[in-house]
Amino acid sequence: MKFAKTHTLKEISEIIACDFVGDENFPVLGMNEIHVVEEGDIVFVDHPKYYDKALQSKATVVLINKEVECPEGKALLVSDDPFRDFNKLTRHFKPFETAAASIAESAEIGEGTIIQPNVFIGNHVKIGKNCVIHPNVTIYDRCILGDNVTIHAGTVLGADAFYYKNRPEGFDKLLTGGNVVIENNVDIGAGCTIDRGVTASTTIKEGSKLDNQIQVGHDTIIGKKCLIASHVGIAGCCIIEDEVTLWGQVGITSGATIGKKAVILAQSGISKSLEGGKTYFGYPAEEAREKLKQIAYIKKIPEILKKLKKI
Amino acid sequence: MKFAKTHTLKEISEIIACDFVGDENFPVLGMNEIHVVEEGDIVFVDHPKYYDKALQSKATVVLINKEVECPEGKALLVSDDPFRDFNKLTRHFKPFETAAASIAESAEIGEGTIIQPNVFIGNHVKIGKNCVIHPNVTIYDRCILGDNVTIHAGTVLGADAFYYKNRPEGFDKLLTGGNVVIENNVDIGAGCTIDRGVTASTTIKEGSKLDNQIQVGHDTIIGKKCLIASHVGIAGCCIIEDEVTLWGQVGITSGATIGKKAVILAQSGISKSLEGGKTYFGYPAEEAREKLKQIAYIKKIPEILKKLKKI
Amino acid sequence: MKFAKTHTLKEISEIIACDFVGDENFPVLGMNEIHVVEEGDIVFVDHPKYYDKALQSKATVVLINKEVECPEGKALLVSDDPFRDFNKLTRHFKPFETAAASIAESAEIGEGTIIQPNVFIGNHVKIGKNCVIHPNVTIYDRCILGDNVTIHAGTVLGADAFYYKNRPEGFDKLLTGGNVVIENNVDIGAGCTIDRGVTASTTIKEGSKLDNQIQVGHDTIIGKKCLIASHVGIAGCCIIEDEVTLWGQVGITSGATIGKKAVILAQSGISKSLEGGKTYFGYPAEEAREKLKQIAYIKKIPEILKKLKKI
Repeated sequence: MKFAKTHTLKEISEIIACDFVGDENFPVLGMNEIHVVEEGDIVFVDHPKYYDKALQSKATVVLINKEVECPEGKALLVSDDPFRDFNKLTRHFKPFETAAASIAESAEIGEGTIIQPNVFIGNHVKIGKNCVIHPNVTIYDRCILGDNVTIHAGTVLGADAFYYKNRPEGFDKLLTGGNVVIENNVDIGAGCTIDRGVTASTTIKEGSKLDNQIQVGHDTIIGKKCLIASHVGIAGCCIIEDEVTLWGQVGITSGATIGKKAVILAQSGISKSLEGGKTYFGYPAEEAREKLKQIAYIKKIPEILKKLKKI
Repeated sequence: MKFAKTHTLKEISEIIACDFVGDENFPVLGMNEIHVVEEGDIVFVDHPKYYDKALQSKATVVLINKEVECPEGKALLVSDDPFRDFNKLTRHFKPFETAAASIAESAEIGEGTIIQPNVFIGNHVKIGKNCVIHPNVTIYDRCILGDNVTIHAGTVLGADAFYYKNRPEGFDKLLTGGNVVIENNVDIGAGCTIDRGVTASTTIKEGSKLDNQIQVGHDTIIGKKCLIASHVGIAGCCIIEDEVTLWGQVGITSGATIGKKAVILAQSGISKSLEGGKTYFGYPAEEAREKLKQIAYIKKIPEILKKLKKI
Repeated sequence: MKFAKTHTLKEISEIIACDFVGDENFPVLGMNEIHVVEEGDIVFVDHPKYYDKALQSKATVVLINKEVECPEGKALLVSDDPFRDFNKLTRHFKPFETAAASIAESAEIGEGTIIQPNVFIGNHVKIGKNCVIHPNVTIYDRCILGDNVTIHAGTVLGADAFYYKNRPEGFDKLLTGGNVVIENNVDIGAGCTIDRGVTASTTIKEGSKLDNQIQVGHDTIIGKKCLIASHVGIAGCCIIEDEVTLWGQVGITSGATIGKKAVILAQSGISKSLEGGKTYFGYPAEEAREKLKQIAYIKKIPEILKKLKKI
């Protein structure tokens, strides 16, 4: 996420009350998680294992818990608790705004769009033209919907990411300042939950169609023309490429990429990235043909045992 | 679905601007999908593979993309795109009506029925006597509920069928003009989604009890006295016969019939129809006893490998 | 559940119009199901198989369908249908109260707590300080939430237990007079359903974090600092001990206990209690390492068949 205006390194260090390494006027344009970071952004890192990755990322400001050597052309924010201070920045730049009404005054709603009763539309939400938002839908702050989008009843767009740091005193939540972006011609069924990105956007691209009770985690990107059946659960930070088909009750682990035109049969469990253009089945999922062979093999075991007895 | 009054073949052909074969006064009573079609109905077909099935169905008017020989006593509507024109008819006869209020004036609500706050009840909905509709429930237009029905919070009755035609330019949605019918003494838990039928009714028969977060697809029929645990997903066009028990997280593929008094154990995946009176388990599901044997067999493989080494 | 004041055995017998064995002034303090029964409570039993268990439980008043010998220091209520009469008592002492408004006047809401639009809060609900209740949440009567609790949109706390007696004329529902208790620092995602206890409380203890679309059955107790991913289904009367991790789409059968610090991998099906401190996988679930070995073994079957042919 980008800030509304460019801030200086000094200004940022004052917000979180920490030291910095670099020119006090070093420009800071935004803040992001490591996998979506861009030039001008702050990234945070609190484990030596990931120092190098953060320092060598596109981020130009690294919020870090040790004063390390600062790479050329970058700056450091040195904090005893980067996680806590990243949350402080989120709270500062994207504070939670209590709703004054069911439909926020700051929401922009396009021509021809129908908002049914009992819908909640948060602050700064943008909805395109000719959409239908069915009853009891919740759209959290700053989500963006394109044109010709249908959202069925009870669906929730933009709840918090499920992202916690395990501290001795309890789970500490990473605050989420991102949003959900739904492109043109997307249909989303009833009772779905699409979490917003931590700093970036959870995105469902043009023409994809989702059935009911689907879960999409934070920062996941679903490509164009995907077809997703009900009760599918997609964890955070996944990439579902274009024209993927996911049948009912499929589960996909966080960070996995599902290649273009892959088909995943019902109830499969995906624990790693999969190549496109193939059909998968089972948990752990394999190519469907191979998996079905294995199922047939199991039935041959009694026969094997009989033969072995004879020998 | 039946039209409010009988139309002539000519009237229908004018609505969709297509040619027809047959008497211009040929009576047209309604329109339906092939699996629920009745005499007097229009059915649509756009693939030569299914021409015969459509022409020989109970439908008396066939909306088709080729001028074929018209069966005796029937009529044809000849269109370059029957799918598009079937949608045109749905839009004409069952147009989407924006809600004027959370509870439609045209809704009929029986004596003794309690409607809790934040409920949406669409146009022409009928609810019987002594029902309880808990908060944040959504009941789409034209759904029908019997007496002594309980619907728990957040449940959605009557969202659109998940039914698309894959066109080069994107998925094209089949519009749904059907409804949901809930018979007497049915309980439905919280957070369920029951889609409406495309042209007919998705039906839950007398005395069945559904737990929370259950998905029921379009046109599915659930029999009497069924017991369905939470997170079960039943696809479209299924028939669940009377007194069936489905345990948690079971998934059933579209079009399957589950026979009377069948019991399906938790997390099973049903990819084809199953005989009644038996207990099933696994995916692909088999009789539970057989499946449990197979699981035991797998554990004998190390022993088999040992024996083979010795030989 | 305890009554607001102590009643006499005679008063109770008059409410349900049944006979009693014992002093007419015998004190009755409350009513509970067998697994949570305390001294002074009524318990019900209607099957000879469970007579002894009920008579020897902590309950001091046994609602039973046969005049058996009354244990020392206890009393009996003798009814032709204890299930029906237990329901009568629930209806008498915890009658369903129709809501007069979206937020009940009798609800107590702590300082600093934000209630977003379209939320339903039932009668006698208590919510602590600094909570956020997001839009379209439903909180049924008498639920209790601690401090710093976040409930995301569309979640339902306190719907009825899924608990029926199978009678020849249909399923007869056990009425639920219990509630849901959410302790301090708990986060619950969007679209979750947590059913209330039958007579006691479904409880989520301090610091636990639940993702979206999770189902928790009646009377289940979730310990401290548990982490539960989306689409997990936990049946009724389970005990999930502290610091348990349940990954996505896990299902747990009713009555199971999951030991402290257990980790259950995604999509696993738990059909019995599991020891703490271990990682489990599959359905039926076993220790993950063992299960993964079995999956590898299956792939050796073709090789085994080849070898056997040679012999």
